[in-house]
Amino acid sequence: MLTLTLSNEDNVAVARTALAKDVLLPEHRGLACRSDVPQFHKVAIKSIAKGQPVIKYRQVIGVALTDIAAGEHVHDHNCGMTDERIAPATKAKTAELPPDIETSFEGYLRADGEVGTRNYVGIITTVNCSASVAKAIEQYYSQAEVAGRYPNVDGVIAITHGSGCGMNKGEGYELLMRVCAGMSQHPNFGGVMLIGLGCEVLQLSALLDALPDDVRKRSNTLVIQEQGGTRATIEAGIEKMAVLCEVSNTLSRTPQPVSKLRVGLQCGGSDALSGITANPALGRAMDILTSLGGTAILSETPELYGAEQMLRARAASDEVADKLNDRLAWWREYAGKNGAQLDNNPSPGNKAGGLTTILEKSLGAQAKGGTSTMTDVVAYAQLIRKSGLVIMDSPGYDPVSVTGQMASGANLICFTTGRGSVYGSRPAPSIKLATNTPMYEKMTLDMDYNCGEIFDGEISLEDAAVEIYRTIVRVASGEKTKSELHGIGALEFLPWPVGAVL
Amino acid sequence: MLTLTLSNEDNVAVARTALAKDVLLPEHRGLACRSDVPQFHKVAIKSIAKGQPVIKYRQVIGVALTDIAAGEHVHDHNCGMTDERIAPATKAKTAELPPDIETSFEGYLRADGEVGTRNYVGIITTVNCSASVAKAIEQYYSQAEVAGRYPNVDGVIAITHGSGCGMNKGEGYELLMRVCAGMSQHPNFGGVMLIGLGCEVLQLSALLDALPDDVRKRSNTLVIQEQGGTRATIEAGIEKMAVLCEVSNTLSRTPQPVSKLRVGLQCGGSDALSGITANPALGRAMDILTSLGGTAILSETPELYGAEQMLRARAASDEVADKLNDRLAWWREYAGKNGAQLDNNPSPGNKAGGLTTILEKSLGAQAKGGTSTMTDVVAYAQLIRKSGLVIMDSPGYDPVSVTGQMASGANLICFTTGRGSVYGSRPAPSIKLATNTPMYEKMTLDMDYNCGEIFDGEISLEDAAVEIYRTIVRVASGEKTKSELHGIGALEFLPWPVGAVL
Ligand SMILES: [Ca+2]
Ligand SMILES: [Ca+2]
Ligand SMILES: [Ca+2]
Ligand SMILES: [Ca+2]
Ligand SMILES: [Ca+2]
Repeated sequence: MLTLTLSNEDNVAVARTALAKDVLLPEHRGLACRSDVPQFHKVAIKSIAKGQPVIKYRQVIGVALTDIAAGEHVHDHNCGMTDERIAPATKAKTAELPPDIETSFEGYLRADGEVGTRNYVGIITTVNCSASVAKAIEQYYSQAEVAGRYPNVDGVIAITHGSGCGMNKGEGYELLMRVCAGMSQHPNFGGVMLIGLGCEVLQLSALLDALPDDVRKRSNTLVIQEQGGTRATIEAGIEKMAVLCEVSNTLSRTPQPVSKLRVGLQCGGSDALSGITANPALGRAMDILTSLGGTAILSETPELYGAEQMLRARAASDEVADKLNDRLAWWREYAGKNGAQLDNNPSPGNKAGGLTTILEKSLGAQAKGGTSTMTDVVAYAQLIRKSGLVIMDSPGYDPVSVTGQMASGANLICFTTGRGSVYGSRPAPSIKLATNTPMYEKMTLDMDYNCGEIFDGEISLEDAAVEIYRTIVRVASGEKTKSELHGIGALEFLPWPVGAVL
Repeated sequence: MLTLTLSNEDNVAVARTALAKDVLLPEHRGLACRSDVPQFHKVAIKSIAKGQPVIKYRQVIGVALTDIAAGEHVHDHNCGMTDERIAPATKAKTAELPPDIETSFEGYLRADGEVGTRNYVGIITTVNCSASVAKAIEQYYSQAEVAGRYPNVDGVIAITHGSGCGMNKGEGYELLMRVCAGMSQHPNFGGVMLIGLGCEVLQLSALLDALPDDVRKRSNTLVIQEQGGTRATIEAGIEKMAVLCEVSNTLSRTPQPVSKLRVGLQCGGSDALSGITANPALGRAMDILTSLGGTAILSETPELYGAEQMLRARAASDEVADKLNDRLAWWREYAGKNGAQLDNNPSPGNKAGGLTTILEKSLGAQAKGGTSTMTDVVAYAQLIRKSGLVIMDSPGYDPVSVTGQMASGANLICFTTGRGSVYGSRPAPSIKLATNTPMYEKMTLDMDYNCGEIFDGEISLEDAAVEIYRTIVRVASGEKTKSELHGIGALEFLPWPVGAVL
């Protein structure tokens, strides 16, 4: 078959290969293409009158801007945004577990009951001004001879960012404080050192106040202006760090239930296959995880716009559904006052990949969350303490979104990509799932799993989901991801910059 | 004398040392302190009735919130914001040049007539997604054996940032494009490589379109998704970089007029001495530089609030004065819609250092610009092509402001600090000027010059200005700054994040 049709109510189909004008589509009673259709783009399989909805996934993905004849390429030249929605028939489902599925992984049990998938020592910075000092301490401990003293430690890593001063104490300050507090107690850290400059807006003492007692007690702190500058702080940091590394080096992996996994879900560089292959397969893997008591974190709020009805229909309560509404309302205001539009979120790469509207992107994006009950909705970087499918509010932009997910407690990230992202995160490792085989074959060294084989007919979606779940368990137990092998993640830690920079 | 009085119209004086309650001030006819006054904080030397202006530098720095008796500590408990201003008596002045002042430095003359103070090779990234690849190429070329092949090259440096996608094409996009375009043609780069991912909003092809022909022609470009991923791009980048390094290695310093210097002015971690020692001394050094045809860049627009009348009075034309008004109006809107206040800009460190209001901070801050004619007002990261004193709009936040100054063409930064900043920038080196001796003595290894000696009575402001000017000439000619010796600057490159992150 030259095309893939996702439901019998759809009036567009997806081109499996590039279709030239006049090519006949036998699966659609010999319909002839009226224009060239690039691979993975949409072709109309019924005529759609101007103003009528364009239907894919049994949902509205846009409205015809002109009369569209059957056989025409459907994209942003003839398909635009609409407010029309179709209420979903599906409610929350409980997944049936595959036989012999793993229910535990090898993790680091922390004092507070949280479990790490890695055993790093972290250096948390309250402000950009302490970033270079933190980095210098990281570099000292990255030397082979020094790192070799602590074989059970995955590394000393500086968590640096670009903010912490030049700001008022408003929404942006609170957000950054949550990020710093969340990272300071991240389960993938065996210990943390906190470093400030001294005169910044986000004061180290305020961060300490925001931490639980046990974390505060086991944290080392340094203030550059008190130490007497760059060199003195680096020297003091190197000395104090040895104790944190020694303690962390005594820890080892033990069997832990998968209910201790919190998986941050992400897509980046989406294409038209994201919603057909990688996202639904990842969603099914999340159904397995949440059935076993684990947590799936769906974020990228602007990419839920147009799919919110799917999530609200399976909220644990009206309160949870209302929280989602509140966040979407916040986003409309945030976008509006910044002169931005939520409905033209698809990036140039998304569009080239065949995604026409944010509705189409969103319907594909929400599939990552699976079909279980939406148990909670939390703010960016807010600690997640409920299991099941939780929404953590964030932009769609990958590094900013994953940073919030890690600060909220994600100890693993699953990242689907169509155009070929080379993203990586730390301290939580990031598994990259390719949506299509051509990209996978071109960028194999960056991809952890090829979901394109679902589209190729080489594996069922169900079997791919089990493969993804098993990859999660292996990576959580210590297997390195491609991005970890490349050493990516230091420059990708990016707290969401909200509010005025002064 | 226990206090310093800046003009005979002032009703407050600055405490030279911490003053205990009941201490007598002989220089004010035996006035007794009515409360403890911390060092560098203000003491009332006349009684100030509630609602009356508090005067320092012959200007309004605030309004009395209560009746203030002579001898009382004046700070944010009894002094608040006001809209009152005193029109300045001073117009633009042309500086008298000190005898035997240097009129040239040793710099790198580029093909376009611009002159570098350093000879780096740059790697410009269009998006965060290409940051790690750029860093890996930098790291390869940082190895002693590789760097050793290019003794005339100061290093290969990756210019990475956190944006480039997850955004609409609005104000924030245009700003980031200016930053990328400005850095691509920075005179401190002998050559540049441009690296993108492929699917991002800020496309490499659009950046190339924004560059002058000669820069575009001598730039190498790489797109990760075209190359086939992380490893392939790093390998291709390492190979292509050799050519850039070889070409840059053929260049050497030659005598160049100081008119080719563009100095970005900055304060960070200001205290009450900033406006008394380092800033006016730096301003006098800028008067020398601009008299010789060089350029001084004053920025930190929120810290001009309250001192705008001083600048408008010496604008080259009404158009230039209007441009400043326009930027201040933009700032009021930006702060307002983000729920921020321009008038509480002083950070905790500023306040601890004795700065009470933004007016007081601003009056001290604008002194960095000297007393010459304000020749132009440009947007953040907009290329500066006029000489003299130019305002480049930016936040006060150091790394964000300096990033814009460098993108606008600053080939050197002068940074005054009271609390003790450990800031550094690259590719433009950053000279740090301490405002007070206690901080200088504590953080000597981070400070390039101690302006505290002006306050101590060990050097005149005039002589300190000449010392600063000579330090600028030496550093422009290759002498390393303290922050360069510490290797600071990679994590401090921060384009201003304006607009919604989507
Ligand atoms: Ca994303
Ligand atoms: Ca295959
Ligand atoms: Ca060299
Ligand atoms: Ca500043
Ligand atoms: Ca001295």
